Amino acid sequence: MNRFGNRFSFTTFGESHGKAVGVIIDGVPAGIEVDEKFIQSEMDRRKPGKNSFATARKEGDVVEILSGVFEGKTTGTSLAMIVFNENQKSKDYSNIKDLFRPSHADFTYFNKYGVRDYRGGGRSSARETLARVSAGAIAKLMLKSLNIEIISGVSYIGGVGSDSYDFDFAKKSEIYSLSPQFEEKQKKMILKAKDSHNSLGGTVFVRVKNAPIGLGEPVYYKLDAILADAMMGINGVKGVEIGLGKDSTLIKGSENNDQMDIDGFVTNNSGGILGGISNGENIDIKVHFKPTPSIFVEQTTQDIYGGVHNMSLKGRHDPIIAVRGSVVAEAMASLVIADMILLNMGRKIDEIKKYYQ
Amino acid sequence: MNRFGNRFSFTTFGESHGKAVGVIIDGVPAGIEVDEKFIQSEMDRRKPGKNSFATARKEGDVVEILSGVFEGKTTGTSLAMIVFNENQKSKDYSNIKDLFRPSHADFTYFNKYGVRDYRGGGRSSARETLARVSAGAIAKLMLKSLNIEIISGVSYIGGVGSDSYDFDFAKKSEIYSLSPQFEEKQKKMILKAKDSHNSLGGTVFVRVKNAPIGLGEPVYYKLDAILADAMMGINGVKGVEIGLGKDSTLIKGSENNDQMDIDGFVTNNSGGILGGISNGENIDIKVHFKPTPSIFVEQTTQDIYGGVHNMSLKGRHDPIIAVRGSVVAEAMASLVIADMILLNMGRKIDEIKKYYQ
Amino acid sequence: MNRFGNRFSFTTFGESHGKAVGVIIDGVPAGIEVDEKFIQSEMDRRKPGKNSFATARKEGDVVEILSGVFEGKTTGTSLAMIVFNENQKSKDYSNIKDLFRPSHADFTYFNKYGVRDYRGGGRSSARETLARVSAGAIAKLMLKSLNIEIISGVSYIGGVGSDSYDFDFAKKSEIYSLSPQFEEKQKKMILKAKDSHNSLGGTVFVRVKNAPIGLGEPVYYKLDAILADAMMGINGVKGVEIGLGKDSTLIKGSENNDQMDIDGFVTNNSGGILGGISNGENIDIKVHFKPTPSIFVEQTTQDIYGGVHNMSLKGRHDPIIAVRGSVVAEAMASLVIADMILLNMGRKIDEIKKYYQ
Amino acid sequence: MNRFGNRFSFTTFGESHGKAVGVIIDGVPAGIEVDEKFIQSEMDRRKPGKNSFATARKEGDVVEILSGVFEGKTTGTSLAMIVFNENQKSKDYSNIKDLFRPSHADFTYFNKYGVRDYRGGGRSSARETLARVSAGAIAKLMLKSLNIEIISGVSYIGGVGSDSYDFDFAKKSEIYSLSPQFEEKQKKMILKAKDSHNSLGGTVFVRVKNAPIGLGEPVYYKLDAILADAMMGINGVKGVEIGLGKDSTLIKGSENNDQMDIDGFVTNNSGGILGGISNGENIDIKVHFKPTPSIFVEQTTQDIYGGVHNMSLKGRHDPIIAVRGSVVAEAMASLVIADMILLNMGRKIDEIKKYYQ
Repeated sequence: MNRFGNRFSFTTFGESHGKAVGVIIDGVPAGIEVDEKFIQSEMDRRKPGKNSFATARKEGDVVEILSGVFEGKTTGTSLAMIVFNENQKSKDYSNIKDLFRPSHADFTYFNKYGVRDYRGGGRSSARETLARVSAGAIAKLMLKSLNIEIISGVSYIGGVGSDSYDFDFAKKSEIYSLSPQFEEKQKKMILKAKDSHNSLGGTVFVRVKNAPIGLGEPVYYKLDAILADAMMGINGVKGVEIGLGKDSTLIKGSENNDQMDIDGFVTNNSGGILGGISNGENIDIKVHFKPTPSIFVEQTTQDIYGGVHNMSLKGRHDPIIAVRGSVVAEAMASLVIADMILLNMGRKIDEIKKYYQ
Repeated sequence: MNRFGNRFSFTTFGESHGKAVGVIIDGVPAGIEVDEKFIQSEMDRRKPGKNSFATARKEGDVVEILSGVFEGKTTGTSLAMIVFNENQKSKDYSNIKDLFRPSHADFTYFNKYGVRDYRGGGRSSARETLARVSAGAIAKLMLKSLNIEIISGVSYIGGVGSDSYDFDFAKKSEIYSLSPQFEEKQKKMILKAKDSHNSLGGTVFVRVKNAPIGLGEPVYYKLDAILADAMMGINGVKGVEIGLGKDSTLIKGSENNDQMDIDGFVTNNSGGILGGISNGENIDIKVHFKPTPSIFVEQTTQDIYGGVHNMSLKGRHDPIIAVRGSVVAEAMASLVIADMILLNMGRKIDEIKKYYQ
Repeated sequence: MNRFGNRFSFTTFGESHGKAVGVIIDGVPAGIEVDEKFIQSEMDRRKPGKNSFATARKEGDVVEILSGVFEGKTTGTSLAMIVFNENQKSKDYSNIKDLFRPSHADFTYFNKYGVRDYRGGGRSSARETLARVSAGAIAKLMLKSLNIEIISGVSYIGGVGSDSYDFDFAKKSEIYSLSPQFEEKQKKMILKAKDSHNSLGGTVFVRVKNAPIGLGEPVYYKLDAILADAMMGINGVKGVEIGLGKDSTLIKGSENNDQMDIDGFVTNNSGGILGGISNGENIDIKVHFKPTPSIFVEQTTQDIYGGVHNMSLKGRHDPIIAVRGSVVAEAMASLVIADMILLNMGRKIDEIKKYYQ
Repeated sequence: MNRFGNRFSFTTFGESHGKAVGVIIDGVPAGIEVDEKFIQSEMDRRKPGKNSFATARKEGDVVEILSGVFEGKTTGTSLAMIVFNENQKSKDYSNIKDLFRPSHADFTYFNKYGVRDYRGGGRSSARETLARVSAGAIAKLMLKSLNIEIISGVSYIGGVGSDSYDFDFAKKSEIYSLSPQFEEKQKKMILKAKDSHNSLGGTVFVRVKNAPIGLGEPVYYKLDAILADAMMGINGVKGVEIGLGKDSTLIKGSENNDQMDIDGFVTNNSGGILGGISNGENIDIKVHFKPTPSIFVEQTTQDIYGGVHNMSLKGRHDPIIAVRGSVVAEAMASLVIADMILLNMGRKIDEIKKYYQ
């Protein structure tokens, strides 16, 4: 099931080492000005090979629009985008062809489908997420025209970081760090992990600013529930929190409740969502990424026949998923909000009457 | 959007103080023996008013099957169940009729729909979750015939508890505590919060045992993503983790990876899911509930006209959501697994050929 | 799969001889005034036992709203309605318990589900359609506030009738005949078929008046495609046409094309739909119902073990499905249009901007 | 909404004069051998420009697989295919840029989306149907391995033809005529219409052979309902019938009912579907196509500003849609059956138990 979303939905295709990766977005409203440079700049934020904190593998990741745009504007029809893979046949996988890489999806895909696509993870590769980022860029263009902004960054790496978020800093940081105070340390940790052929986990913080009140469709398409779905479905994510999240279990109701005064909510422990519906405050999401499973230290694993082997992965891999993953998380949040914007229309008969007058 | 699931899906209706709460389950396979006593026993586990650790409000919560069962077995048609509310008109809400209860959904529902259903939360009330529990009981009956078991309990209350889980103990514990060591302390904390008109948060642990390898439909209906959706959508939940969850951000790849030996996976940090697909290990889910927002200490809030008031809630409320919430989380997990069981059929052409021979 | 529709969707439950038949509607906008008398009057139009042209079986078919309405208006939450069956245990089915009634769904349900619900067709009974009519009444209340009207009647019975439609006449006709000229003859044909223990087929004409331009979501949720789905899914329907329908195959393009002059479309051969989208003209649908399969002449059939028997059905059955079926067709058209009204919102970014200002 | 189907579903993109037209199929089981020559041969059956009975416009329509196939077999992941348009910029549309072509979708798309894509119909063009044919070819490969066959042809052209179907003849006929007796006359009618700058309508007959009993998901995803949806959604279709269809309204129940003897059903007036579920007999579908709206005689129409004009279309167009449309209808039937095959799995708990053993 390769489709996400309801009214603003998208379907992706492509394997890490196939011909291309792409997406069809369904439900894009007509009349959105399509800034192709912006779309490409989003792709570039996610692109590998840019600095020493990410994988050394290089991909152009040039995105091309195939349909749904005419004379610079969306037409309301399905909008397709494609990225052709550049080096899809470049690598020799013979040494790991039959081995399940530890904590990768190799084992489960093989058991589910009976097919062994050994080329770099095939469909389970995080390369698929470039389709999400391109779709997210279209969502962002839509949200921008509604003055909704989605921002993100990396708050913690290997437990080091802060709950104070400097989004402007993150934009310029090579590791999208939200913390001017901890960025240097975080960088050192990454390089050290890399040098020791190991990897690190991290936490991404995503904020939706200026979302209107009323987004989210109770009781089974709640804004927080769908955000959790969107985030947990990103490669390597093992935890999602909204607002205070887990920390709200540590305090009392009287401390956790967001009281209201004449200016509105006094606090935002709820992370901008009450009863699954946005309340007009910032929507705050924490996303926890496990360490990259592709490491270069020796590990024990099975092959597809059940035999046990020691294996040492080779190649080029991110020492941390969370960094480039933050761009994907931001894209997914944009896609969820765009969807909720459309779903929310038609909630009141008075608004419908006005719409059709 | 009041529907959850894909092939084994359910749609609920009902408000806390309306005539009834109920559910239609769509996609129940034919031939499942329907043990009505078991279904009622599941309802009873969630039922309020049973002891001093929960709300004193009493409801019979007797569930009645309206369709989809004939001569004791499911027929493959839509299975409807209903619980009539007993005391739906008993309470006087006049004092809070126009006030938004802090950190409740009152504010967002009113703003979204323009309707003020002041009767105990209306549709946003956790009373809706009894429909989930009844549906979950049908899912459990299906899973039982496949030897899949879903168990749960409360691991932490206000930060006190343990990551060692005694499921048998939880079954008998009045607060579904998973910890023989901490239960007594947890109980005291609840009573103390109650006495001080306050409330506590807590963490629920859900485990799926003996799930087959292959459940989960990549890349946008992943098992972990849909579990996150299911859990985050439960009233009061603010965080969801799979396996090690957030803690996996604190360790290195070499520590986090689940290596394999001749007997299979050596560890289960992944929580039984790799690439969004079950790997045959225990599926482990942590669910974080905020403290009950209904507390009896004075708070500041707005009314529907924007005026600011001090308010003191009255009535009967759970001092902690997580306890009865654990039953709901277990039900939701059962429903997700039942859905994935059906979705997973038809993944290989060879199996389809055999099926239709 | 017991759900129909996308944004204004409904799910039904119930068997002909179970406890109740009912529906949950999902996506009803908030603020619609709920005229319960109107809803019941729609149920009464479909109700059996009213005159000699329909089955003599009597059912009260009193509909009760269980949720989704507060103080006389819809709340935006799921709206449930129920009709309890009155005489569900009254009949002795022992003589046909194991026999497949010819051209009924008995054979296919038994083979699909392995369950033999011999009580009057169980879920496959047209009794299920009362849920559609109750849901359709809510859709009509919504459409009425948008000045959209849906009307219908029976145009042909056993091939006798006319393509000239008198909807006012149909409202008062006992057989909902659209033809003052042919009604008498049609009535005689029905009574004659009834006397000879046989049945007749017929054609229903449904018209949507004053639908806005733009309804229908290309290219796979086209207005005509979903209307065809809705109509063909009604018990006994074997053909659906839009506008000129089949007759458009008999004329040339120059005759069939709807040209435009200063006042708009000169003709309406398209039946109000171009490219799957409404064009502002009347939406015209023809629905062909086969003769009632329940007849009292002797027929040959198999039992569930493969044995061959002569059988003579007993009981009370409609001599023609199309008459009461017209009420169901009208309801389904209303539900489709209500759905399309919601789906169409959000087609242009300019309208979305205005909506969220 | 550019997606069709449930478990075996597909999403298409592309405009008639855009860069490319393509499709993503979701839910293809793993392990199907992909015969690319067969897929191309299906494309070629639909291809324009092959003889004097179709449009003279030439397109290569070479289909390329982008994902979902590895080493000649499907992998279970999303399968994307693309056809690049060859002459997308070749034509001068300036003369009709602002004119609504009569009985085309120009008027409704413009009014719905506020966008005027004047390039040959844009998304509403029948060129989109090549995506359906490529997807249908994958469905056919799946069905072939289950011994299910889908065949079709043109039964009537302008009312001339027969209800006796010679499918082998149709395969070789340049106009896919099912009638050796009437083909010559039908050809003459087409050429005559073409010479007089006019067009003809026609009827397509599609048959599904050897479908298992049990396909179709009552009561709102019935086999006949979804087939009606699939067929009515094809460009130019105005009517759909199953089995006897409309003609069943002309006969009595005793004549229409399909009785059973020791060998099964004696007749097949039901067209292989009872209660929305396949009964093991041939599934028979009639599809009525209106005459091509693109004709070269002078017509009156409006421009996008409301002005009235006489217009004469130029260019190359099919004198009849039904001929090439039959290939599309066959593809859509294949896609529906493939979907139903997957949905039907999991209907009985006993089969599920066996599946997971």
